Amino acid sequence: MAFVGPIARLVQQLGKLPGIGEKTAARLAFHILRAPAEDAAALAASIAEVKQKIRFCGTCCDLTDRDPCAICADARRDDGLICVVAQPQDVVAVERAGGFRGRYHVLHGLLSPLDGIGPDDLRVAELVRRCTGAIQEVILATSPSVEGEATAVYLAKLVRPLGVKTTRIATGVPMGGELEYADQVTLARAIDGRREI
Amino acid sequence: MAFVGPIARLVQQLGKLPGIGEKTAARLAFHILRAPAEDAAALAASIAEVKQKIRFCGTCCDLTDRDPCAICADARRDDGLICVVAQPQDVVAVERAGGFRGRYHVLHGLLSPLDGIGPDDLRVAELVRRCTGAIQEVILATSPSVEGEATAVYLAKLVRPLGVKTTRIATGVPMGGELEYADQVTLARAIDGRREI
Repeated sequence: MAFVGPIARLVQQLGKLPGIGEKTAARLAFHILRAPAEDAAALAASIAEVKQKIRFCGTCCDLTDRDPCAICADARRDDGLICVVAQPQDVVAVERAGGFRGRYHVLHGLLSPLDGIGPDDLRVAELVRRCTGAIQEVILATSPSVEGEATAVYLAKLVRPLGVKTTRIATGVPMGGELEYADQVTLARAIDGRREI
Repeated sequence: MAFVGPIARLVQQLGKLPGIGEKTAARLAFHILRAPAEDAAALAASIAEVKQKIRFCGTCCDLTDRDPCAICADARRDDGLICVVAQPQDVVAVERAGGFRGRYHVLHGLLSPLDGIGPDDLRVAELVRRCTGAIQEVILATSPSVEGEATAVYLAKLVRPLGVKTTRIATGVPMGGELEYADQVTLARAIDGRREI
């Protein structure tokens, strides 16, 4: 579109965000223009704040505003158990699910040879370093996608020789899902992973 | 989600934008976290810049960083012709279509009694004030929606008694559209508005 000056610059900057095309960027820009000045200032300030304050936790590699992060600093959590996830959002998802009281390790990505992402691009070395000592079990909680599976298999091969038990989260029909609509692979995995009740 | 600290604040601020739910806000926030510091700074700065510099043009009420705006200040444009639109984006759309060389007037909304939006909430008084003088024709270019039509009819009744010709943009089958798939009202309007070729 033919916006000019400050509006064009804002539309351009918003358009760099993922999933935000030019039309959505224009809609967001005009919303910001109409919004109260405090709201726009708060948005700009919070963008600056995350870039300034957020860094990696030296232990679990999660994003945090203090090092060690709140979970690593929590003395009540189980030091023997590490849940390995691909990204910081996954830590939030597992925490929300409740029940898990161990530690985390954030890889910041998944192995993807086609995209040129190898072990050195992920926080794999940091995980291996943690696997000496009190760690008894590493739960590989990457998504059951091609990259997630490949990453889990790779990590299992790396961690198991260190004498640490490695487990993989279960794959199966999701709660509330219908057998009828489950895909073949999911259903085969669900039958494969059946448990006594 | 259970984000904390600066990330939670950014997710909350992004979630206030239209069409951005909590999950999208989290995705955008993590993109900003991963993006180069310059990009995040540019985004924050452009938000601050629009709020600081953009104001209403004293003539056409469009959003602008200088008053009068570039279009109102352009001496080569036709002073006798005003194209009335609902919002600043519509000015950009008409300009992009090309061919129109008159002036604009931005209403900043459409009449909508159900939402409590009356003439006093729009830039109607400013339009009426402009209709004395050199103005020969006012083109009512609001959308052919219920509110757009009502606003056009209302403005026509207001402007016509001032001795100014009022016209309405054509409604019909869009270019590239199929008669077969055009809705009844559009097709009836297209037949109604037929022109000799």
